[in-house]
Amino acid sequence: MPDAAPAPEFLVRPDPADAKLTRRVAGIDQDGKPVETAVVEERPLTLFLNGQEIVTMMTIGDYPQYLAVGYLLNQNMLKADDAVTAIDYDEELQVVVVRTGRTTNFEEKLKKKTRTSGCAQGTVFGDLMEKFDEIRLPKDAPLKTSWLYALTKKINTIPSLYLEAGAIHGCVLCEEDRPLVYMEDVGRHNAVDKIAGYMHLKGLGPENKSFYTTGRLTSEMVIKTVQMRIPILISRSGFTAWGVELAKKADLTLIGRARGKRFVALAGEHRIVFDADTRYAADEPKHARRKASRADEAE
Amino acid sequence: MPDAAPAPEFLVRPDPADAKLTRRVAGIDQDGKPVETAVVEERPLTLFLNGQEIVTMMTIGDYPQYLAVGYLLNQNMLKADDAVTAIDYDEELQVVVVRTGRTTNFEEKLKKKTRTSGCAQGTVFGDLMEKFDEIRLPKDAPLKTSWLYALTKKINTIPSLYLEAGAIHGCVLCEEDRPLVYMEDVGRHNAVDKIAGYMHLKGLGPENKSFYTTGRLTSEMVIKTVQMRIPILISRSGFTAWGVELAKKADLTLIGRARGKRFVALAGEHRIVFDADTRYAADEPKHARRKASRADEAE
Repeated sequence: MPDAAPAPEFLVRPDPADAKLTRRVAGIDQDGKPVETAVVEERPLTLFLNGQEIVTMMTIGDYPQYLAVGYLLNQNMLKADDAVTAIDYDEELQVVVVRTGRTTNFEEKLKKKTRTSGCAQGTVFGDLMEKFDEIRLPKDAPLKTSWLYALTKKINTIPSLYLEAGAIHGCVLCEEDRPLVYMEDVGRHNAVDKIAGYMHLKGLGPENKSFYTTGRLTSEMVIKTVQMRIPILISRSGFTAWGVELAKKADLTLIGRARGKRFVALAGEHRIVFDADTRYAADEPKHARRKASRADEAE
Repeated sequence: MPDAAPAPEFLVRPDPADAKLTRRVAGIDQDGKPVETAVVEERPLTLFLNGQEIVTMMTIGDYPQYLAVGYLLNQNMLKADDAVTAIDYDEELQVVVVRTGRTTNFEEKLKKKTRTSGCAQGTVFGDLMEKFDEIRLPKDAPLKTSWLYALTKKINTIPSLYLEAGAIHGCVLCEEDRPLVYMEDVGRHNAVDKIAGYMHLKGLGPENKSFYTTGRLTSEMVIKTVQMRIPILISRSGFTAWGVELAKKADLTLIGRARGKRFVALAGEHRIVFDADTRYAADEPKHARRKASRADEAE
């Protein structure tokens, strides 16, 4: 949709007021005094594709349809041009069923996967890498540092389950300085998959987008971002060596340890436009801090 | 070994000087200036049990033997009384093979698992829960708050890959105020599994032990701790609702958000002995902070 008006900020965002997502639990604190605290829910969700059981995921349980479709896309079990004919979610049974036009091919593929690896994890990862090498990310997709600072500030200050209860990961699909889709989940890969599912089902393309995650920049995270055709990946956490290597290979712009005015870019640096004067950019306020490591602070 | 002398502190601990575990990578910072930073390595390791491929794990690559045995133990593919006859590790092929006395049973079990679920993850999880219900943790295993404060201080200040490069999880097997085995890995479940493997191969029992993790207190983390027969689980991170529920069910002492003098206990509170005067206990120094959330700070 290149000619459409810019999408509004936070089309989707966490709903900390949703009583299904957190629970109040009684306990004691360091002085032995009774305390009551909010903790996030974590539920099994079993995914079927056309009658075949694929996986059971642990999730907070919002947006099971997006999670299901995004998981299948990011595992290459569903192609971008596949027609999703139905998504049936049964809250009581904790089951979601995705139905597609083409049926037989996927089932054959799944059988093969299961037989060769003993666990879908291993083989699926091999498949991901195969596709990875073919993807070309757009060169002309700038990231202005002023956008980056605006994004992290907006993401850190909007109400979220993280601010309410902690122990949760967040991912945000962004365009320029605007966070568009903010998903949270107990598993960070679920948060990514929910965004991939949303993009597929709503027809929201990867053009001019960047991707923000609270999680670490591991190989899996880099592979998923490249598969989603998003050229910029930003995290407040750190890097792994293979994540950096894959990002360089795919020419993905990889920005880590993004906190306040600070960040480090270890791949695809050419997309960064330094338009913000960091002498006047603010440090991250203490209340917005999520993670900090001595290594990061020392740099 | 109830009559043996207490085990010394840090029998195993991270080796940030090991050149195989981190890599120096060049990039740029927020001012566009060149920087060089340390990032942790992340390698695939494929695990075989008696000739059958089980799973491919992403790991930093230290202690592949402990990781392999611990993974199999925590997935109930290896029983506590199974004799491990050989562990062959091929660094070049990135393969580890565990051989046991009894062969056929495991292979039958694995076949069944693969067939019923399409991904070992799902079914294995079911098996874990089955065993979980039978385990009785010892009631008389106190945790003094003075031990807790001493433990977290020692763990946060000893040199580690975390302090060197960030983006890594740590787990520590402890006894009273002494950290015994400190493992780190890119995957927090790998760190747990490496400790389980070490305990099994070295004959280190769970008696009088507590378990510290930098990761969140999710259901999987609680299940693994209970399976290891360790009655106390401590984390600097937060809780999930199902993690708390399972901890209550197993009577596991569950302590979260343990930073400086602060903590919250949401299960098994009866084991905690409040012998430290928190008025004089120190807050966590800024340089030792790993994670903080606004929710946690607000409590």
